[in-house]
Amino acid sequence: MKNIELKVLNLLKGAKEASLKLGNISTADKDRAILAMASALLKNTKYILSENAKDVALARDSAKTFAESSKNKRQPAFLLDRLTLTEKRIKEMADSLKQIAALKDPVGKILRQWKRPNGLIIRKISVPIGVIGIIYESRPNVTSDCAGLSLKSGNVCVLRGGSEAINSNIAIRKVITKCLEKFGIPKTAITMIDVADRFAVEFLLKQDSLIDVVIPRGGEGLIRYVAENSLIPVIKHYKGVCHLYVDKDADIEMALDIMLNAKVQRPGVCNAIEKMLVHKDIAHKFLPKAAGILDDKGVELRGCLKTLKILKGIKKAAEKDWYKEYLDLILTIKIVKDVDEAISHINKYGSRHSDAIVTKSKLTAEKFLKEVDSACVYHNASTRFTDGYQFGMGAEIGISTDKIHARGPMALEELCTYKYIILGSGQLRT
Amino acid sequence: MKNIELKVLNLLKGAKEASLKLGNISTADKDRAILAMASALLKNTKYILSENAKDVALARDSAKTFAESSKNKRQPAFLLDRLTLTEKRIKEMADSLKQIAALKDPVGKILRQWKRPNGLIIRKISVPIGVIGIIYESRPNVTSDCAGLSLKSGNVCVLRGGSEAINSNIAIRKVITKCLEKFGIPKTAITMIDVADRFAVEFLLKQDSLIDVVIPRGGEGLIRYVAENSLIPVIKHYKGVCHLYVDKDADIEMALDIMLNAKVQRPGVCNAIEKMLVHKDIAHKFLPKAAGILDDKGVELRGCLKTLKILKGIKKAAEKDWYKEYLDLILTIKIVKDVDEAISHINKYGSRHSDAIVTKSKLTAEKFLKEVDSACVYHNASTRFTDGYQFGMGAEIGISTDKIHARGPMALEELCTYKYIILGSGQLRT
Repeated sequence: MKNIELKVLNLLKGAKEASLKLGNISTADKDRAILAMASALLKNTKYILSENAKDVALARDSAKTFAESSKNKRQPAFLLDRLTLTEKRIKEMADSLKQIAALKDPVGKILRQWKRPNGLIIRKISVPIGVIGIIYESRPNVTSDCAGLSLKSGNVCVLRGGSEAINSNIAIRKVITKCLEKFGIPKTAITMIDVADRFAVEFLLKQDSLIDVVIPRGGEGLIRYVAENSLIPVIKHYKGVCHLYVDKDADIEMALDIMLNAKVQRPGVCNAIEKMLVHKDIAHKFLPKAAGILDDKGVELRGCLKTLKILKGIKKAAEKDWYKEYLDLILTIKIVKDVDEAISHINKYGSRHSDAIVTKSKLTAEKFLKEVDSACVYHNASTRFTDGYQFGMGAEIGISTDKIHARGPMALEELCTYKYIILGSGQLRT
Repeated sequence: MKNIELKVLNLLKGAKEASLKLGNISTADKDRAILAMASALLKNTKYILSENAKDVALARDSAKTFAESSKNKRQPAFLLDRLTLTEKRIKEMADSLKQIAALKDPVGKILRQWKRPNGLIIRKISVPIGVIGIIYESRPNVTSDCAGLSLKSGNVCVLRGGSEAINSNIAIRKVITKCLEKFGIPKTAITMIDVADRFAVEFLLKQDSLIDVVIPRGGEGLIRYVAENSLIPVIKHYKGVCHLYVDKDADIEMALDIMLNAKVQRPGVCNAIEKMLVHKDIAHKFLPKAAGILDDKGVELRGCLKTLKILKGIKKAAEKDWYKEYLDLILTIKIVKDVDEAISHINKYGSRHSDAIVTKSKLTAEKFLKEVDSACVYHNASTRFTDGYQFGMGAEIGISTDKIHARGPMALEELCTYKYIILGSGQLRT
């Protein structure tokens, strides 16, 4: 066995052992530990910032090299921004932990209980999943967020951040794990795979007896890599190709507001819209207004052939446009003949993330809400609400476009599974 | 693209299309279709038996070859039994469909609904998963059972049975799919991958845009193959290494009854016990009685060193024995010093399936029920109850020892996922 394998295996065994102990930690102790983690982050702000500065300096160097050899100067700046910590951001990380401590403990709820004719009592109760692998990129705040959410839900987290944030992540982990032992929580409840070799991830993804689920967070490339290499169940979303459908019975002012909010308020996130479908009967009235507003905000428009007849001079959409997540100020528009065509289009090209209809017709809305096969389907609201906080879950560990276990925003409840406890008095099967 | 790939892709596209239509079929029509399937099985018994006879003849031939070249004459007979249909078995298949028709429709339940401060109403509702791939071996009854359960839960099933049962499976599929169209259900709602090439399975397992979840049913080899090759989420159990722990405070008569039932009543199934842990304080009293009873039933005993001192002459257990699922009349026994050692042993060597404690101590039972990390944990009852029917679910599509989505017996509810419907009045995110 290679040296790297041994190191990873040792770390994972520590994580697994901790997970069997976490069930016996009281809610109060978990909450106290999470609050202590928040304080420790604030107290050690200087140290964390100095370690983060090392990562930022390295990233700046490579961004410079990248910019010199490329025309795309925006992307590295965007990544640098994600990587950079500030006093304010560390305070936000601490605040997020405080919020997590204040949430209800999701573990130990009796989800259902029933009695069989033979007298057996079957009780279905919520329990932690066990060991959760989190593989992520850039943002160092993921380290403390995921540690807090995992601990609160009685899970051990195994964190593997990107190499670009390694110093920041190690510093955060060091600071927060110091708070665990005084509450009886093993240090390995927050385990970090700090082995600097990409093979470590490949190896980790095969350890299905030590990790129960993997949640990858980052770009589509990272997530595909994890899905393709993992023997462990993965909960994920590849991308968010979200749609707004403006029906013939739409309130046009509302449709324009929702369009603007869903496209422009924060275009680089997965719940922003990338496509707009417009009913043919309203297109002539709606599209010129929409184009005017979007143009003011610097949004590039692309369109189907019918759209091009109304919005002259915009770029023609290619087939691949319909699948694409731009994460940018680009919107592709299609005119559809009815709600059925809108639904079919979304189910074919969408990513099952978040899609919205604007209409005053209850019947049309019901059809859309029922037949669009996405995690979150909206009537008369912006898709930007697909988010654990906005849903009132108090937190978010990720978003799932899978259909297994969790769909849409995932928080504490989704970090739990269940078990059956069966109480008998000597029952035998005949 | 290869010919096989094209064929499989075509079949899967038909399945996916059907899945988008199934949501609009009423409960009444689904139930009528399932009842019609039951009648059709009965009406076509002769035809199905004649097709099954072809499979059995082929299997008998290869069993003969196998027996001549091997000492193990039992296994082929066991497989032949699983493969063989009789009038009675077809009647049971029809009965099973009738039972499924009588169950409650799991789709469309409002699981929760809440209102956000901004007025958004968030509704979480149960919906079908979509397309369910089922990869199975031998037993042809799986074909109609899975078709019925999938249809009832609004899912399309993609069935891939073993080559040894190909004629039987095709016949059953042919008979039951004839009942679909008159209820508005596309024939491809029950899709069978009848391409006679193992590569078809490998290719199918990569189609994560067309299949939502794969449930493999069969031996550990098949299940590992599926888990290792699938890009689609898999729900599975590799094996059932179930334990009975006889505590020092056990009612000895009850413990003996449960032991006998859990080991002997049907040793070839996953919820039978394979190991027995006995508290050291009760071992001298309990083990000789247990050995006498088990010996009468032809059970081979193996034991740890301490057990060997009490039960002289039995075989010493090897390390690998503790991991092994015998599916046979073999039981391996370990003497433990307390409930903690029993729990640690089960969490280390078990398969997270079903484990039981026999004790009169409520405190000890609570500890065991809480800390044993298995899908089903029993107090004073046989592990043999881990089964959808025994749990009162009315059906079973499989058992999961994973922690994601479903744990333990899986039936209609576990064939559903959820989606969020969000009702607004123009809300924007700020």
